[in-house]
Amino acid sequence: MPVENVHSPFVIPAEALLEHWQGHRRLSRRVIEAFPEDRLFSFSVGSMRPFGAMALELISMAEPMVRGIVTGNWDQSISRDARPKQEILRLWDESTEKINGLWPQIPAERFQETMTAFGKYPGRVYDLLLYVIDNEIHHRGQGYVYLRALGIEPPPFYER
Amino acid sequence: MPVENVHSPFVIPAEALLEHWQGHRRLSRRVIEAFPEDRLFSFSVGSMRPFGAMALELISMAEPMVRGIVTGNWDQSISRDARPKQEILRLWDESTEKINGLWPQIPAERFQETMTAFGKYPGRVYDLLLYVIDNEIHHRGQGYVYLRALGIEPPPFYER
Repeated sequence: MPVENVHSPFVIPAEALLEHWQGHRRLSRRVIEAFPEDRLFSFSVGSMRPFGAMALELISMAEPMVRGIVTGNWDQSISRDARPKQEILRLWDESTEKINGLWPQIPAERFQETMTAFGKYPGRVYDLLLYVIDNEIHHRGQGYVYLRALGIEPPPFYER
Repeated sequence: MPVENVHSPFVIPAEALLEHWQGHRRLSRRVIEAFPEDRLFSFSVGSMRPFGAMALELISMAEPMVRGIVTGNWDQSISRDARPKQEILRLWDESTEKINGLWPQIPAERFQETMTAFGKYPGRVYDLLLYVIDNEIHHRGQGYVYLRALGIEPPPFYER
């Protein structure tokens, strides 16, 4: 650990971080659900990606990140092709279950270790996990704008 | 603490959480800077608020949350009126300094305690802090869409 952290108290329990993330994942799932089937891979604002493509990115990072941290297997292969909303939701739910199974297998000390995620992104394990959560919040916020632009009220941000 | 957390290891040091947040705050500052002066309080997508109003919301939550946690003073008064970008950035930088001064004054055990933020929002202190960080990421993601819709490239998400 860097010197400046030696005397800094640890403040977030591993299980609370998982519950925090799964709360966000429940909200993100509702945002995916809120998109009309025919807009998920066709609508965007300002030449950005459609929300379906963002959702596939999130799926390609979430369970693979936790799996990599536990097993060292950083395989991330998932097709980014458009697909029906139900298929996105099925992949989402599969990831949720896998994450719940993998998380308790992260050894306590590993959270403070440095790993290179996906062979490319070095970082302390808790930072790698926060990055995946933050990236989800970031793109979901963009999904909120798409929904509003479509005249659809997004689910409340504070409901998890 | 809830029973299920008793044996869960603590995984994020207080100082690392502050550094994580200040990294996000540096990025959010760059997003504010990227807006043209005449669009900060006039442009939005889908009848949403302009980004300047969101920035004032973030300012009204950030330092006041940490101050409330440290002192129990939950005053949050800040005018939401439109103002020049330089004034927003000045308020932002003031908050940054105040947060850095207040954070080390949060007693270690307080992070696990339950408080009622702003007299309205009960929660465990680490969850209240994560909420403020997440809300910033959420609205900043919306700011990214506004910038793209204006034909402006936002700063890279991964640069903090």
